[in-house]
Amino acid sequence: MNVKKVPEVVVKRLPRYYRYLDDLLKNKVYRISSAELSKKMNVTASQIRQDFNYFGGFGQQGFGYSVQMLHSEIGEILGLNKGLKTILVGAGNLGKAIANHAKFEKRGFHMIGAFDVSPEIVGKKIKDITIMDYSQMEAFVKEHNPDIAILTVSQKNVKDVAKHLEDIGIKALWNFSYTEFESDKMIVENVHLSDSIMMLSYKLHNE
Amino acid sequence: MNVKKVPEVVVKRLPRYYRYLDDLLKNKVYRISSAELSKKMNVTASQIRQDFNYFGGFGQQGFGYSVQMLHSEIGEILGLNKGLKTILVGAGNLGKAIANHAKFEKRGFHMIGAFDVSPEIVGKKIKDITIMDYSQMEAFVKEHNPDIAILTVSQKNVKDVAKHLEDIGIKALWNFSYTEFESDKMIVENVHLSDSIMMLSYKLHNE
Repeated sequence: MNVKKVPEVVVKRLPRYYRYLDDLLKNKVYRISSAELSKKMNVTASQIRQDFNYFGGFGQQGFGYSVQMLHSEIGEILGLNKGLKTILVGAGNLGKAIANHAKFEKRGFHMIGAFDVSPEIVGKKIKDITIMDYSQMEAFVKEHNPDIAILTVSQKNVKDVAKHLEDIGIKALWNFSYTEFESDKMIVENVHLSDSIMMLSYKLHNE
Repeated sequence: MNVKKVPEVVVKRLPRYYRYLDDLLKNKVYRISSAELSKKMNVTASQIRQDFNYFGGFGQQGFGYSVQMLHSEIGEILGLNKGLKTILVGAGNLGKAIANHAKFEKRGFHMIGAFDVSPEIVGKKIKDITIMDYSQMEAFVKEHNPDIAILTVSQKNVKDVAKHLEDIGIKALWNFSYTEFESDKMIVENVHLSDSIMMLSYKLHNE
């Protein structure tokens, strides 16, 4: 289905579309016009049509979109139906919060292992997974071939850990560690929680 | 200093500039050309100059920017030197992870109270703060006048809690609750952690 190279800015909107459609379904809304979707998404209706055209375009103008169809098409484009294996690297509070977030399981992300260096944490459980020592990670990755590493270690040694994950064949890194990491071999999403609170600060002082 | 209305897209880049400049200072880099900054930021040099012009423009072309000066100017624009009082609403794993994140303190966000509904959590401590019962929140807010509520409650009742925070005079909401909230009275930043893992999924399946 996906032939043209899709611009990053369009890819960025896909999870948002998916989230909104999910909410609509939860609220038992089964049909939506591009004008309504546009209003909800804060994107012009023509932009939405252009975005959807990258994937063949779905839905009829005038009659609107079937929410169920859009939801499942975009879910499929995002690969949420395929299932991805994740490991958690750093099992502190943030790691636990992410591991326990039910939505990730529902969206096809299956945590198969968790690792930490702290003797107080290793051996404990997150959900039904026993947290292993960091030294066991390499062998585990070679055996179980996870797709995504969720990196929630503290700032020290982040680059070493990320480099190690790259070396042992992790394909994607979801990096919460406040230190950006770039890689030619891994797909990386750097999450910066503090950016949004800094924006709040700006707005509080200027609006 | 800040006279023109600054577009949201420029405001969004400010925390990123600040973060990069912070890294540069940590690495003892004291001067940077707009070309280098542009490369690091993945924004054109002319865009950077345009962005800075909203705030009067800093630095000289050719000679480059003083990192220290840019860092402190942008920090000031973001209001990080002024100090903001936050409360934590929902003191589970995610709430704890955020409360314990040292950078927020360093950037001027002071947590003055934490609230939860769970009898197992109320009475425990986060840092040096004793977690209070949710029923005590209204009186606390009226007395201490916090600026920002960090919302990390689970999905149920999010809208009621957010509405309550709005009613009792909270000015800004940092919403981690996976349910979007919009408000005419509060400044809201909705954080969607799962958007970035959905993007990873897309990229793993399509790139």
